[in-house]
Amino acid sequence: MRTAFYISDGTAITSEVFGHALLSLFPIQFEHVTVPFVETEQEAYETVRKISEIFQRTGERPLVFYTIVNKDVKEIISTSEGIHYNFLEQYIAPLEKTLGVPSKPEKHRTHSIHEKTYDIRIDAVNYALANDDGTNLKEYGKADIVLVGVSRSGKTPTSLYLALQYGIKAANYPFTEDDMGDILKLPSALRPYKNKLFGLTISPERLHQIRSERKANSKYASMQQCRMEIREVENLYRKEKIPFLNSTHFSIEEISAKILSITGLSRHKY
Amino acid sequence: MRTAFYISDGTAITSEVFGHALLSLFPIQFEHVTVPFVETEQEAYETVRKISEIFQRTGERPLVFYTIVNKDVKEIISTSEGIHYNFLEQYIAPLEKTLGVPSKPEKHRTHSIHEKTYDIRIDAVNYALANDDGTNLKEYGKADIVLVGVSRSGKTPTSLYLALQYGIKAANYPFTEDDMGDILKLPSALRPYKNKLFGLTISPERLHQIRSERKANSKYASMQQCRMEIREVENLYRKEKIPFLNSTHFSIEEISAKILSITGLSRHKY
Repeated sequence: MRTAFYISDGTAITSEVFGHALLSLFPIQFEHVTVPFVETEQEAYETVRKISEIFQRTGERPLVFYTIVNKDVKEIISTSEGIHYNFLEQYIAPLEKTLGVPSKPEKHRTHSIHEKTYDIRIDAVNYALANDDGTNLKEYGKADIVLVGVSRSGKTPTSLYLALQYGIKAANYPFTEDDMGDILKLPSALRPYKNKLFGLTISPERLHQIRSERKANSKYASMQQCRMEIREVENLYRKEKIPFLNSTHFSIEEISAKILSITGLSRHKY
Repeated sequence: MRTAFYISDGTAITSEVFGHALLSLFPIQFEHVTVPFVETEQEAYETVRKISEIFQRTGERPLVFYTIVNKDVKEIISTSEGIHYNFLEQYIAPLEKTLGVPSKPEKHRTHSIHEKTYDIRIDAVNYALANDDGTNLKEYGKADIVLVGVSRSGKTPTSLYLALQYGIKAANYPFTEDDMGDILKLPSALRPYKNKLFGLTISPERLHQIRSERKANSKYASMQQCRMEIREVENLYRKEKIPFLNSTHFSIEEISAKILSITGLSRHKY
């Protein structure tokens, strides 16, 4: 199996995202090795040795995706026996010309605590945790968005992703048996925040499957209950004109991107 | 201000990460616009129109970072008045040669629910939530790692990041006043999981600052208390040979990358 290295003087997240996107275009498997925080010449030589070892053992040149600021460290990596993808470098000179300013590479510019929105993201994570699952309605005034939906429709992971990645304060509120009654009405506690509500829904079949993994053979997990709850929330969304999204076929990354796109919420990190 | 567009037929996360890394090399501000899920020719034409509008208004060609699979949609985007960075494309032909197989681009290959590790990541998020803050020691047997440390040293956001990004099941346990006593000993409940423990520490000054934001002028937030707790946990880590990391100057992305690197834990997503 061909090995791909992701190397950086920082987290190597950028190299991983770029390399993974490129390799995902090919219908084959790769062995992945991330080497973060390569900051000294000695660490660079060790990494070059690792690459050589794998080349010797497999007979296939590893693919090496890297972004490194220090010139000496970068040059050492570029002497490895791998196939090198210094994938940002080539764009720098033309972009300097376009922008009319010289680049000023600094270490740890991305994914570090020095990003000015870092504290906003951590606050948003704490907010999401404190306002998970309808536990704490008194802070909904501070929410950027309030996700609503039935239990297990994807609210919690989505609110955490919105917080971690984008610094968006997302509360979430589950409609429960108590809210349902004969017919699901908008709980009066949510009404003051109606313009922040965003609904999630999901296919009854998928909901039944997810709930069955938690509580097999319960009323909670039954197809009948799942069908009823989904019908009620979708009726409510339509009646109250709450924007909503069916999460059945989407990842939390996709749900989050769609929510941002639909609501126009402004995010704190790119 | 120069505008940067991130365009994709998927979430556009890859374009954002690439574009952001490149632009972060320049000491200037940009206006960012993400346009995800551009899947039809009509959506492509609308996006081209948006780019033109900004060019007309500002007199500066927007930078356009994009990855799109559909050929017709891609071609429409490439006719915009922006400066185009179709940053994966150029690597495909040489990589096909290297790998000896043709590429097989498919939509939604990354960041979608179809990634085979998606369910593992969601399970890990649910695990992290259920095992946050020492609430639930009986599931520690299933943990990949148990983060330990004093209150507010970064355990919870780190465990959520490890789960969301890498599908790693991270429990976390806070050492409390009860554990401290005269001298902090390893709680007996943790001993069976000793080989999974990873310690976080933080500077007393930073801890004091974070705790003061939550409970100003409390004993909990006092410099004296913060100093005492940090001294005790660091002594414990050394005595029990628990690997540990000082989180003071690191983001959760950096802490997570360092934990993976130190422990050699295997991750479920690249």
